Amino acid sequence: MDFEKVLNERIELVNEGLRAYLKPRYPEIIYEAMGYSVFAGGKRLRPLLLLGACEAVGGDISEALGFACAIEMIHTYTLIHDDLPAMDNDDFRRGKPTCHKAFSEDIAILAGDGLLNLGFEVMLSEAVKKGGAEYTRAALTIGELCGVKGTIGGQVVDLLSEEKKADEETLLYIHKTKTAALIQAALKAGAIIGGADHKALSSLDEIGYKMGIAFQIKDDILDITSTTEVLGKPVGSDDKNNKSTYVSVFGFDRANEDYLRLSEEVCRLLDDFGEKGAFLRAYAEKLIDRIN
Amino acid sequence: MDFEKVLNERIELVNEGLRAYLKPRYPEIIYEAMGYSVFAGGKRLRPLLLLGACEAVGGDISEALGFACAIEMIHTYTLIHDDLPAMDNDDFRRGKPTCHKAFSEDIAILAGDGLLNLGFEVMLSEAVKKGGAEYTRAALTIGELCGVKGTIGGQVVDLLSEEKKADEETLLYIHKTKTAALIQAALKAGAIIGGADHKALSSLDEIGYKMGIAFQIKDDILDITSTTEVLGKPVGSDDKNNKSTYVSVFGFDRANEDYLRLSEEVCRLLDDFGEKGAFLRAYAEKLIDRIN
Repeated sequence: MDFEKVLNERIELVNEGLRAYLKPRYPEIIYEAMGYSVFAGGKRLRPLLLLGACEAVGGDISEALGFACAIEMIHTYTLIHDDLPAMDNDDFRRGKPTCHKAFSEDIAILAGDGLLNLGFEVMLSEAVKKGGAEYTRAALTIGELCGVKGTIGGQVVDLLSEEKKADEETLLYIHKTKTAALIQAALKAGAIIGGADHKALSSLDEIGYKMGIAFQIKDDILDITSTTEVLGKPVGSDDKNNKSTYVSVFGFDRANEDYLRLSEEVCRLLDDFGEKGAFLRAYAEKLIDRIN
Repeated sequence: MDFEKVLNERIELVNEGLRAYLKPRYPEIIYEAMGYSVFAGGKRLRPLLLLGACEAVGGDISEALGFACAIEMIHTYTLIHDDLPAMDNDDFRRGKPTCHKAFSEDIAILAGDGLLNLGFEVMLSEAVKKGGAEYTRAALTIGELCGVKGTIGGQVVDLLSEEKKADEETLLYIHKTKTAALIQAALKAGAIIGGADHKALSSLDEIGYKMGIAFQIKDDILDITSTTEVLGKPVGSDDKNNKSTYVSVFGFDRANEDYLRLSEEVCRLLDDFGEKGAFLRAYAEKLIDRIN
Protein backbone atom coordinates (compact mmCIF):
# COMPACT_ATOMS: atom_id res chain seq x y z
CA MET A 1 0.00 0.00 0.00
CA ASP A 2 1.28 3.43 -0.96
CA PHE A 3 0.00 5.06 2.20
CA GLU A 4 0.42 8.70 1.17
CA LYS A 5 -1.31 8.03 -2.16
CA VAL A 6 -4.27 6.31 -0.51
CA LEU A 7 -4.42 9.03 2.13
CA ASN A 8 -4.63 11.80 -0.48
CA GLU A 9 -7.17 9.90 -2.56
CA ARG A 10 -9.40 9.51 0.48
CA ILE A 11 -9.06 13.15 1.48
CA GLU A 12 -10.09 14.09 -2.07
CA LEU A 13 -13.06 11.69 -1.92
CA VAL A 14 -14.25 13.33 1.31
CA ASN A 15 -13.70 16.84 -0.09
CA GLU A 16 -15.65 15.98 -3.23
CA GLY A 17 -18.51 14.70 -1.10
CA LEU A 18 -18.45 17.81 1.10
CA ARG A 19 -18.41 20.12 -1.94
CA ALA A 20 -21.48 18.35 -3.32
CA TYR A 21 -23.40 18.52 -0.03
CA LEU A 22 -22.51 22.19 0.44
CA LYS A 23 -23.18 23.37 -3.11
CA PRO A 24 -24.67 26.86 -2.70
CA ARG A 25 -28.35 27.43 -3.25
CA TYR A 26 -30.72 30.10 -1.92
CA PRO A 27 -29.99 31.70 0.55
CA GLU A 28 -26.37 31.49 -0.66
CA ILE A 29 -24.70 33.21 2.30
CA ILE A 30 -25.40 30.33 4.68
CA TYR A 31 -23.86 27.80 2.29
CA GLU A 32 -20.89 30.13 1.82
CA ALA A 33 -20.40 30.42 5.58
CA MET A 34 -20.70 26.66 6.12
CA GLY A 35 -18.34 25.98 3.19
CA TYR A 36 -15.89 28.63 4.38
CA SER A 37 -15.36 26.83 7.68
CA VAL A 38 -15.49 23.30 6.27
CA PHE A 39 -12.81 24.20 3.70
CA ALA A 40 -10.65 26.27 6.05
CA GLY A 41 -7.89 23.67 6.12
CA GLY A 42 -9.18 20.73 8.16
CA LYS A 43 -7.10 17.55 7.91
CA ARG A 44 -10.25 15.39 7.63
CA LEU A 45 -9.02 13.38 10.61
CA ARG A 46 -12.45 12.10 11.69
CA PRO A 47 -13.61 11.16 8.17
CA LEU A 48 -10.33 9.28 7.58
CA LEU A 49 -10.73 7.40 10.85
CA LEU A 50 -14.33 6.55 9.98
CA LEU A 51 -13.38 5.21 6.56
CA GLY A 52 -10.36 3.38 8.00
CA ALA A 53 -12.47 1.67 10.67
CA CYS A 54 -15.04 0.59 8.08
CA GLU A 55 -12.23 -0.96 6.02
CA ALA A 56 -10.54 -2.50 9.06
CA VAL A 57 -13.60 -4.63 9.80
CA GLY A 58 -13.97 -5.71 6.18
CA GLY A 59 -16.46 -3.09 4.98
CA ASP A 60 -16.57 -1.17 1.71
CA ILE A 61 -15.48 2.43 2.32
CA SER A 62 -17.65 3.78 -0.49
CA GLU A 63 -20.66 2.80 1.64
CA ALA A 64 -19.38 4.99 4.47
CA LEU A 65 -18.56 8.14 2.53
CA GLY A 66 -21.77 10.00 3.41
CA PHE A 67 -21.13 9.40 7.11
CA ALA A 68 -17.50 10.51 6.70
CA CYS A 69 -18.74 13.85 5.33
CA ALA A 70 -21.41 14.10 8.04
CA ILE A 71 -18.93 13.73 10.89
CA GLU A 72 -16.72 16.46 9.39
CA MET A 73 -19.75 18.77 9.23
CA ILE A 74 -20.52 18.05 12.87
CA HIS A 75 -16.89 18.57 13.89
CA THR A 76 -16.83 21.89 12.00
CA TYR A 77 -20.02 23.11 13.70
CA THR A 78 -18.38 22.58 17.11
CA LEU A 79 -15.42 24.73 15.99
CA ILE A 80 -17.65 27.55 14.67
CA HIS A 81 -19.70 27.71 17.87
CA ASP A 82 -16.67 27.30 20.17
CA ASP A 83 -14.99 30.28 18.46
CA LEU A 84 -17.98 32.64 19.02
CA PRO A 85 -17.46 35.79 21.12
CA ALA A 86 -19.71 34.43 23.88
CA MET A 87 -17.63 31.21 24.00
CA ASP A 88 -13.84 31.15 23.42
CA ASN A 89 -13.90 34.44 21.46
CA ASP A 90 -11.28 33.44 18.89
CA ASP A 91 -10.69 35.67 15.86
CA PHE A 92 -8.46 33.23 14.03
CA ARG A 93 -8.35 29.50 13.43
CA ARG A 94 -5.64 27.83 11.36
CA GLY A 95 -4.41 31.31 10.42
CA LYS A 96 -7.74 32.38 8.88
CA PRO A 97 -10.47 34.59 10.34
CA THR A 98 -13.04 32.53 12.20
CA CYS A 99 -16.54 32.21 10.73
CA HIS A 100 -18.05 35.05 12.77
CA LYS A 101 -15.18 37.36 11.77
CA ALA A 102 -15.36 36.45 8.08
CA PHE A 103 -19.16 36.72 8.07
CA SER A 104 -21.04 37.94 11.14
CA GLU A 105 -22.03 36.51 14.46
CA ASP A 106 -25.64 35.73 13.52
CA ILE A 107 -24.61 33.99 10.32
CA ALA A 108 -21.93 32.01 12.20
CA ILE A 109 -24.46 30.77 14.76
CA LEU A 110 -26.76 29.68 11.93
CA ALA A 111 -23.90 28.15 9.92
CA GLY A 112 -23.08 26.03 12.96
CA ASP A 113 -26.72 25.04 13.40
CA GLY A 114 -26.90 24.34 9.67
CA LEU A 115 -23.87 22.04 9.70
CA LEU A 116 -25.08 20.10 12.73
CA ASN A 117 -28.49 19.67 11.15
CA LEU A 118 -27.04 18.81 7.73
CA GLY A 119 -24.80 16.17 9.32
CA PHE A 120 -27.89 14.41 10.63
CA GLU A 121 -29.76 14.92 7.33
CA VAL A 122 -26.93 13.26 5.42
CA MET A 123 -26.80 10.29 7.81
CA LEU A 124 -30.59 9.86 7.76
CA SER A 125 -30.68 10.16 3.99
CA GLU A 126 -28.03 7.43 3.73
CA ALA A 127 -30.03 5.27 6.16
CA VAL A 128 -33.22 5.72 4.13
CA LYS A 129 -31.48 5.14 0.78
CA LYS A 130 -29.55 2.07 1.89
CA GLY A 131 -32.23 0.65 4.13
CA GLY A 132 -29.89 -1.21 6.48
CA ALA A 133 -30.41 -0.96 10.24
CA GLU A 134 -26.63 -0.49 10.66
CA TYR A 135 -26.85 3.05 9.23
CA THR A 136 -29.44 4.07 11.80
CA ARG A 137 -27.32 2.54 14.56
CA ALA A 138 -24.21 4.33 13.30
CA ALA A 139 -26.07 7.66 13.20
CA LEU A 140 -27.33 7.14 16.76
CA THR A 141 -23.78 6.40 17.93
CA ILE A 142 -22.54 9.67 16.44
CA GLY A 143 -25.58 11.54 17.78
CA GLU A 144 -25.04 10.33 21.34
CA LEU A 145 -21.32 11.07 21.36
CA CYS A 146 -21.70 14.62 20.00
CA GLY A 147 -24.65 15.60 22.20
CA VAL A 148 -25.01 16.76 25.80
CA LYS A 149 -23.61 13.43 27.03
CA GLY A 150 -20.57 14.00 24.78
CA THR A 151 -19.02 16.97 22.97
CA ILE A 152 -21.57 19.57 24.12
CA GLY A 153 -21.31 18.47 27.76
CA GLY A 154 -17.53 18.76 27.43
CA GLN A 155 -17.72 22.31 26.15
CA VAL A 156 -20.04 23.23 29.04
CA VAL A 157 -17.59 21.92 31.65
CA ASP A 158 -14.68 23.52 29.80
CA LEU A 159 -16.42 26.92 29.97
CA LEU A 160 -17.27 26.43 33.66
CA SER A 161 -13.62 25.57 34.40
CA GLU A 162 -12.19 28.71 32.83
CA GLU A 163 -9.99 30.80 35.06
CA LYS A 164 -9.75 28.12 37.71
CA LYS A 165 -7.57 25.05 38.03
CA ALA A 166 -9.55 21.97 37.04
CA ASP A 167 -9.08 18.82 39.14
CA GLU A 168 -7.98 15.57 37.51
CA GLU A 169 -11.49 14.17 37.18
CA THR A 170 -12.86 17.34 35.59
CA LEU A 171 -9.96 17.59 33.15
CA LEU A 172 -10.39 13.97 32.10
CA TYR A 173 -14.12 14.53 31.62
CA ILE A 174 -13.40 17.50 29.34
CA HIS A 175 -10.80 15.61 27.28
CA LYS A 176 -12.99 12.52 27.08
CA THR A 177 -16.04 14.42 25.86
CA LYS A 178 -14.59 17.37 23.93
CA THR A 179 -11.87 15.49 22.09
CA ALA A 180 -12.18 11.73 22.42
CA ALA A 181 -15.97 11.45 21.90
CA LEU A 182 -16.00 12.45 18.22
CA ILE A 183 -12.97 10.24 17.49
CA GLN A 184 -14.72 7.33 19.16
CA ALA A 185 -17.84 8.24 17.19
CA ALA A 186 -15.90 8.17 13.91
CA LEU A 187 -14.31 4.79 14.58
CA LYS A 188 -17.48 3.19 15.95
CA ALA A 189 -19.75 4.51 13.19
CA GLY A 190 -17.32 3.35 10.49
CA ALA A 191 -17.09 -0.06 12.15
CA ILE A 192 -20.87 -0.42 12.46
CA ILE A 193 -21.35 0.46 8.78
CA GLY A 194 -18.60 -2.02 7.88
CA GLY A 195 -20.44 -4.80 9.74
CA ALA A 196 -18.17 -5.12 12.80
CA ASP A 197 -18.85 -7.86 15.34
CA HIS A 198 -19.11 -7.07 19.03
CA LYS A 199 -15.42 -7.68 19.72
CA ALA A 200 -14.14 -5.45 16.91
CA LEU A 201 -16.58 -2.70 17.85
CA SER A 202 -15.54 -2.76 21.47
CA SER A 203 -11.86 -2.70 20.50
CA LEU A 204 -12.38 0.32 18.20
CA ASP A 205 -14.26 2.05 21.00
CA GLU A 206 -11.22 1.60 23.25
CA ILE A 207 -8.88 2.69 20.45
CA GLY A 208 -10.98 5.82 19.92
CA TYR A 209 -10.92 6.75 23.57
CA LYS A 210 -7.17 6.24 23.94
CA MET A 211 -6.39 7.96 20.66
CA GLY A 212 -8.54 10.92 21.66
CA ILE A 213 -6.90 11.36 25.05
CA ALA A 214 -3.44 10.90 23.46
CA PHE A 215 -4.18 13.63 20.86
CA GLN A 216 -5.31 16.01 23.54
CA ILE A 217 -2.21 15.39 25.66
CA LYS A 218 -0.10 15.94 22.54
CA ASP A 219 -1.87 19.25 21.89
CA ASP A 220 -1.23 20.33 25.45
CA ILE A 221 2.45 19.36 25.18
CA LEU A 222 2.88 21.09 21.80
CA ASP A 223 1.42 24.28 23.24
CA ILE A 224 4.52 24.38 25.48
CA THR A 225 7.29 22.85 23.38
CA SER A 226 6.54 23.83 19.79
CA THR A 227 6.97 27.12 17.94
CA THR A 228 4.30 29.35 16.47
CA GLU A 229 5.67 28.64 12.96
CA VAL A 230 5.39 24.86 13.31
CA LEU A 231 2.05 24.96 15.11
CA GLY A 232 0.32 27.62 12.97
CA LYS A 233 -1.12 29.19 16.12
CA PRO A 234 0.44 31.06 19.05
CA VAL A 235 2.26 28.77 21.49
CA GLY A 236 1.74 29.25 25.20
CA SER A 237 -1.89 30.25 24.64
CA ASP A 238 -3.19 27.73 27.19
CA ASP A 239 -0.99 29.23 29.87
CA LYS A 240 -1.90 32.78 28.84
CA ASN A 241 -5.60 31.92 29.03
CA ASN A 242 -5.18 30.20 32.42
CA LYS A 243 -6.47 27.07 30.77
CA SER A 244 -6.06 23.82 32.66
CA THR A 245 -4.23 21.29 30.52
CA TYR A 246 -3.04 17.73 30.94
CA VAL A 247 0.44 19.18 31.54
CA SER A 248 -0.67 21.74 34.14
CA VAL A 249 -2.79 19.19 36.02
CA PHE A 250 -0.57 16.07 35.81
CA GLY A 251 2.87 17.61 35.16
CA PHE A 252 5.02 17.37 32.03
CA ASP A 253 6.65 13.99 32.75
CA ARG A 254 3.39 12.23 33.52
CA ALA A 255 1.81 13.81 30.43
CA ASN A 256 4.62 12.57 28.23
CA GLU A 257 4.54 9.07 29.74
CA ASP A 258 0.77 8.78 29.37
CA TYR A 259 0.96 10.02 25.81
CA LEU A 260 3.53 7.36 24.87
CA ARG A 261 1.69 4.58 26.70
CA LEU A 262 -1.68 5.40 25.15
CA SER A 263 -0.12 5.69 21.67
CA GLU A 264 1.53 2.30 22.02
CA GLU A 265 -1.71 0.73 23.20
CA VAL A 266 -3.55 2.20 20.22
CA CYS A 267 -1.00 0.71 17.81
CA ARG A 268 -1.04 -2.67 19.54
CA LEU A 269 -4.84 -2.84 19.45
CA LEU A 270 -4.81 -1.89 15.78
CA ASP A 271 -2.39 -4.73 14.99
CA ASP A 272 -5.23 -7.20 15.65
CA PHE A 273 -7.02 -5.96 12.53
CA GLY A 274 -4.24 -7.31 10.31
CA GLU A 275 -3.93 -6.36 6.64
CA LYS A 276 -7.44 -4.85 6.47
CA GLY A 277 -6.42 -2.44 9.23
CA ALA A 278 -3.16 -1.41 7.52
CA PHE A 279 -4.36 2.03 6.48
CA LEU A 280 -5.86 2.83 9.88
CA ARG A 281 -2.69 1.57 11.60
CA ALA A 282 -0.45 3.67 9.34
CA TYR A 283 -2.64 6.73 9.78
CA ALA A 284 -2.61 6.38 13.56
CA GLU A 285 1.18 6.12 13.46
CA LYS A 286 1.47 9.18 11.25
CA LEU A 287 -0.59 11.16 13.74
CA ILE A 288 1.50 9.92 16.64
CA ASP A 289 4.78 10.64 14.84
CA ARG A 290 4.09 14.35 14.93
CA ILE A 291 5.75 14.66 18.31
CA ASN A 292 7.87 11.53 18.62
CA MET B 1 -64.77 12.75 22.25
CA ASP B 2 -64.27 15.18 25.11
CA PHE B 3 -61.82 17.32 23.16
CA GLU B 4 -60.48 19.41 26.04
CA LYS B 5 -59.89 16.29 28.14
CA VAL B 6 -58.04 14.49 25.36
CA LEU B 7 -56.06 17.66 24.62
CA ASN B 8 -54.91 18.01 28.21
CA GLU B 9 -54.08 14.31 28.48
CA ARG B 10 -51.89 14.54 25.39
CA ILE B 11 -50.15 17.69 26.59
CA GLU B 12 -49.39 15.87 29.84
CA LEU B 13 -48.08 12.82 27.94
CA VAL B 14 -45.72 15.05 25.97
CA ASN B 15 -44.62 16.91 29.10
CA GLU B 16 -43.92 13.64 30.89
CA GLY B 17 -41.82 12.49 27.98
CA LEU B 18 -39.91 15.77 27.86
CA ARG B 19 -39.28 15.68 31.61
CA ALA B 20 -37.81 12.19 31.29
CA TYR B 21 -35.56 13.10 28.35
CA LEU B 22 -34.36 16.26 30.09
CA LYS B 23 -33.78 14.79 33.54
CA PRO B 24 -30.67 16.57 34.84
CA ARG B 25 -27.36 14.77 34.97
CA TYR B 26 -23.80 16.05 34.94
CA PRO B 27 -23.17 18.82 33.86
CA GLU B 28 -26.51 19.89 35.36
CA ILE B 29 -26.55 23.49 34.11
CA ILE B 30 -27.04 22.50 30.48
CA TYR B 31 -30.04 20.31 31.36
CA GLU B 32 -31.42 23.14 33.50
CA ALA B 33 -31.06 25.61 30.62
CA MET B 34 -32.65 23.23 28.11
CA GLY B 35 -35.47 22.41 30.54
CA TYR B 36 -35.98 26.09 31.39
CA SER B 37 -36.80 26.93 27.80
CA VAL B 38 -38.73 23.75 27.04
CA PHE B 39 -40.96 24.34 30.08
CA ALA B 40 -41.32 28.10 29.61
CA GLY B 41 -44.96 27.82 28.61
CA GLY B 42 -45.06 26.31 25.13
CA LYS B 43 -48.48 25.11 23.98
CA ARG B 44 -46.98 21.88 22.51
CA LEU B 45 -48.56 22.78 19.19
CA ARG B 46 -46.15 20.75 17.03
CA PRO B 47 -46.26 17.63 19.23
CA LEU B 48 -50.07 17.75 19.26
CA LEU B 49 -50.15 18.05 15.47
CA LEU B 50 -47.69 15.17 15.14
CA LEU B 51 -49.75 12.90 17.40
CA GLY B 52 -52.98 14.03 15.72
CA ALA B 53 -51.65 13.23 12.25
CA CYS B 54 -50.48 9.80 13.37
CA GLU B 55 -53.96 9.09 14.70
CA ALA B 56 -55.70 10.57 11.66
CA VAL B 57 -54.08 7.97 9.37
CA GLY B 58 -54.93 5.12 11.74
CA GLY B 59 -51.68 4.93 13.72
CA ASP B 60 -51.14 4.39 17.44
CA ILE B 61 -50.10 7.68 19.06
CA SER B 62 -48.06 5.97 21.76
CA GLU B 63 -45.68 4.92 18.96
CA ALA B 64 -45.16 8.57 18.01
CA LEU B 65 -44.55 10.04 21.45
CA GLY B 66 -40.74 10.12 21.18
CA PHE B 67 -40.98 12.03 17.92
CA ALA B 68 -43.53 14.42 19.46
CA CYS B 69 -41.00 15.26 22.18
CA ALA B 70 -38.19 15.52 19.63
CA ILE B 71 -39.99 18.09 17.49
CA GLU B 72 -40.70 20.22 20.56
CA MET B 73 -36.98 20.13 21.44
CA ILE B 74 -36.09 21.22 17.91
CA HIS B 75 -38.72 23.98 17.96
CA THR B 76 -37.37 25.21 21.31
CA TYR B 77 -33.79 25.30 20.04
CA THR B 78 -34.87 27.64 17.22
CA LEU B 79 -36.46 29.98 19.78
CA ILE B 80 -33.35 30.01 22.02
CA HIS B 81 -31.00 30.78 19.12
CA ASP B 82 -33.38 33.32 17.51
CA ASP B 83 -33.55 35.24 20.79
CA LEU B 84 -29.75 35.58 21.12
CA PRO B 85 -28.21 39.09 21.17
CA ALA B 86 -26.55 38.49 17.78
CA MET B 87 -29.93 37.49 16.31
CA ASP B 88 -33.25 39.09 17.37
CA ASN B 89 -31.86 40.19 20.76
CA ASP B 90 -34.99 39.48 22.77
CA ASP B 91 -34.85 39.64 26.56
CA PHE B 92 -38.30 38.16 27.14
CA ARG B 93 -40.39 35.40 25.63
CA ARG B 94 -43.86 34.57 26.88
CA GLY B 95 -43.25 37.01 29.73
CA LYS B 96 -40.17 35.18 31.04
CA PRO B 97 -36.50 36.06 30.57
CA THR B 98 -35.08 34.36 27.49
CA CYS B 99 -32.54 31.58 27.97
CA HIS B 100 -29.46 33.80 27.57
CA LYS B 101 -30.88 36.26 30.11
CA ALA B 102 -31.80 33.57 32.64
CA PHE B 103 -28.45 31.79 32.17
CA SER B 104 -25.74 33.31 29.98
CA GLU B 105 -25.10 33.64 26.29
CA ASP B 106 -22.62 30.77 26.05
CA ILE B 107 -24.91 28.39 27.92
CA ALA B 108 -27.87 29.46 25.76
CA ILE B 109 -25.95 28.71 22.56
CA LEU B 110 -25.03 25.29 23.92
CA ALA B 111 -28.57 24.65 25.23
CA GLY B 112 -29.84 25.29 21.70
CA ASP B 113 -27.21 22.99 20.22
CA GLY B 114 -28.03 20.42 22.88
CA LEU B 115 -31.76 20.45 22.14
CA LEU B 116 -31.24 20.17 18.37
CA ASN B 117 -28.85 17.28 18.90
CA LEU B 118 -31.08 15.61 21.49
CA GLY B 119 -34.05 15.86 19.13
CA PHE B 120 -32.14 13.79 16.59
CA GLU B 121 -30.85 11.40 19.28
CA VAL B 122 -34.40 10.71 20.43
CA MET B 123 -35.64 10.09 16.88
CA LEU B 124 -32.68 7.83 16.05
CA SER B 125 -33.07 5.95 19.31
CA GLU B 126 -36.74 5.33 18.49
CA ALA B 127 -35.78 4.19 15.00
CA VAL B 128 -33.20 1.74 16.38
CA LYS B 129 -35.51 0.45 19.12
CA LYS B 130 -38.53 -0.01 16.88
CA GLY B 131 -36.62 -1.12 13.81
CA GLY B 132 -39.15 0.10 11.27
CA ALA B 133 -37.97 2.04 8.21
CA GLU B 134 -40.83 4.51 8.73
CA TYR B 135 -39.08 5.98 11.79
CA THR B 136 -35.94 6.72 9.80
CA ARG B 137 -38.05 8.29 7.03
CA ALA B 138 -39.97 10.39 9.56
CA ALA B 139 -36.70 11.61 11.12
CA LEU B 140 -35.32 12.54 7.70
CA THR B 141 -38.50 14.49 6.93
CA ILE B 142 -38.12 16.51 10.12
CA GLY B 143 -34.37 16.92 9.51
CA GLU B 144 -34.86 18.31 6.02
CA LEU B 145 -37.61 20.73 7.01
CA CYS B 146 -35.70 22.16 9.98
CA GLY B 147 -32.34 22.50 8.21
CA VAL B 148 -30.84 25.04 5.80
CA LYS B 149 -33.52 24.20 3.22
CA GLY B 150 -36.16 24.91 5.88
CA THR B 151 -36.25 26.72 9.23
CA ILE B 152 -32.58 27.76 9.26
CA GLY B 153 -32.75 29.12 5.70
CA GLY B 154 -35.84 31.08 6.74
CA GLN B 155 -34.07 32.66 9.70
CA VAL B 156 -31.16 33.65 7.43
CA VAL B 157 -33.47 35.43 4.97
CA ASP B 158 -35.40 37.01 7.85
CA LEU B 159 -32.17 38.47 9.25
CA LEU B 160 -31.09 39.71 5.81
CA SER B 161 -34.48 41.38 5.33
CA GLU B 162 -34.35 43.38 8.55
CA GLU B 163 -34.77 47.10 8.21
CA LYS B 164 -35.91 46.87 4.60
CA LYS B 165 -39.26 46.12 3.03
CA ALA B 166 -39.34 42.50 1.87
CA ASP B 167 -40.98 41.79 -1.49
CA GLU B 168 -43.86 39.30 -1.70
CA GLU B 169 -41.68 36.39 -2.78
CA THR B 170 -39.17 36.94 0.03
CA LEU B 171 -41.88 37.28 2.67
CA LEU B 172 -43.56 34.07 1.51
CA TYR B 173 -40.20 32.27 1.59
CA ILE B 174 -39.66 33.40 5.20
CA HIS B 175 -43.16 32.36 6.30
CA LYS B 176 -42.93 29.06 4.44
CA THR B 177 -39.59 28.10 5.98
CA LYS B 178 -39.61 29.79 9.40
CA THR B 179 -43.19 28.93 10.36
CA ALA B 180 -44.79 26.43 8.00
CA ALA B 181 -41.84 24.03 7.65
CA LEU B 182 -41.91 22.70 11.24
CA ILE B 183 -45.71 22.39 11.15
CA GLN B 184 -45.46 20.43 7.90
CA ALA B 185 -42.69 18.38 9.49
CA ALA B 186 -44.90 17.57 12.50
CA LEU B 187 -47.86 16.47 10.40
CA LYS B 188 -45.78 14.52 7.88
CA ALA B 189 -43.65 12.75 10.49
CA GLY B 190 -46.74 11.77 12.49
CA ALA B 191 -48.41 10.50 9.32
CA ILE B 192 -45.35 8.49 8.24
CA ILE B 193 -45.12 6.86 11.67
CA GLY B 194 -48.86 6.12 11.53
CA GLY B 195 -48.42 4.32 8.21
CA ALA B 196 -49.98 6.92 5.88
CA ASP B 197 -50.41 6.09 2.19
CA HIS B 198 -49.16 8.50 -0.47
CA LYS B 199 -52.47 10.36 -0.76
CA ALA B 200 -52.86 10.99 2.99
CA LEU B 201 -49.23 12.09 3.28
CA SER B 202 -49.55 14.54 0.44
CA SER B 203 -52.78 15.92 1.89
CA LEU B 204 -51.18 16.44 5.31
CA ASP B 205 -48.24 18.14 3.62
CA GLU B 206 -50.65 20.61 2.02
CA ILE B 207 -52.53 21.03 5.32
CA GLY B 208 -49.25 21.76 7.09
CA TYR B 209 -48.22 24.38 4.58
CA LYS B 210 -51.58 26.16 4.62
CA MET B 211 -51.89 25.94 8.40
CA GLY B 212 -48.38 27.37 8.81
CA ILE B 213 -48.99 30.33 6.52
CA ALA B 214 -52.41 30.94 8.14
CA PHE B 215 -50.82 30.97 11.64
CA GLN B 216 -48.22 33.45 10.51
CA ILE B 217 -50.80 35.75 8.94
CA LYS B 218 -52.80 35.51 12.17
CA ASP B 219 -49.71 36.47 14.19
CA ASP B 220 -49.12 39.45 11.94
CA ILE B 221 -52.77 40.55 12.24
CA LEU B 222 -52.81 40.10 16.04
CA ASP B 223 -49.69 42.26 16.33
CA ILE B 224 -51.88 45.12 15.04
CA THR B 225 -55.36 44.39 16.39
CA SER B 226 -54.84 42.74 19.77
CA THR B 227 -53.85 44.17 23.14
CA THR B 228 -50.71 43.50 25.14
CA GLU B 229 -52.82 41.84 27.85
CA VAL B 230 -54.44 39.35 25.48
CA LEU B 231 -51.28 38.68 23.51
CA GLY B 232 -48.82 38.42 26.43
CA LYS B 233 -46.27 40.44 24.45
CA PRO B 234 -46.13 44.06 23.31
CA VAL B 235 -48.41 44.76 20.34
CA GLY B 236 -47.13 46.82 17.43
CA SER B 237 -43.64 45.34 17.84
CA ASP B 238 -43.40 44.37 14.15
CA ASP B 239 -44.05 47.94 13.09
CA LYS B 240 -41.64 49.30 15.71
CA ASN B 241 -38.92 46.93 14.50
CA ASN B 242 -39.58 47.80 10.83
CA LYS B 243 -40.37 44.14 10.31
CA SER B 244 -42.06 43.20 7.05
CA THR B 245 -45.25 41.27 7.77
CA TYR B 246 -48.02 39.74 5.70
CA VAL B 247 -50.09 42.81 6.56
CA SER B 248 -47.42 45.36 5.61
CA VAL B 249 -46.63 43.59 2.34
CA PHE B 250 -50.13 42.52 1.19
CA GLY B 251 -52.35 44.96 3.12
CA PHE B 252 -54.81 44.22 5.93
CA ASP B 253 -57.79 43.19 3.79
CA ARG B 254 -55.83 40.75 1.67
CA ALA B 255 -54.19 39.33 4.82
CA ASN B 256 -57.57 38.76 6.43
CA GLU B 257 -59.03 37.19 3.28
CA ASP B 258 -56.07 34.86 2.82
CA TYR B 259 -56.19 33.87 6.44
CA LEU B 260 -59.86 32.90 6.23
CA ARG B 261 -59.46 31.09 2.90
CA LEU B 262 -56.44 29.07 4.09
CA SER B 263 -58.18 28.19 7.37
CA GLU B 264 -61.24 26.95 5.53
CA GLU B 265 -59.13 24.88 3.17
CA VAL B 266 -57.31 23.31 6.13
CA CYS B 267 -60.63 22.32 7.74
CA ARG B 268 -62.04 20.98 4.47
CA LEU B 269 -58.96 18.87 3.82
CA LEU B 270 -59.09 17.54 7.39
CA ASP B 271 -62.72 16.47 6.91
CA ASP B 272 -61.48 13.72 4.55
CA PHE B 273 -59.86 11.93 7.50
CA GLY B 274 -63.26 11.27 9.06
CA GLU B 275 -63.62 10.08 12.65
CA LYS B 276 -59.92 9.19 13.04
CA GLY B 277 -59.10 12.80 12.22
CA ALA B 278 -61.59 14.24 14.73
CA PHE B 279 -58.98 15.37 17.25
CA LEU B 280 -56.75 16.97 14.63
CA ARG B 281 -59.79 18.67 13.05
CA ALA B 282 -60.98 20.01 16.42
CA TYR B 283 -57.49 21.16 17.35
CA ALA B 284 -57.07 22.99 14.04
CA GLU B 285 -60.41 24.69 14.60
CA LYS B 286 -59.44 25.70 18.13
CA LEU B 287 -56.29 27.32 16.81
CA ILE B 288 -58.21 29.11 14.07
CA ASP B 289 -60.93 30.30 16.45
CA ARG B 290 -58.45 32.52 18.25
CA ILE B 291 -59.15 35.39 15.89
CA ASN B 292 -62.46 34.52 14.26
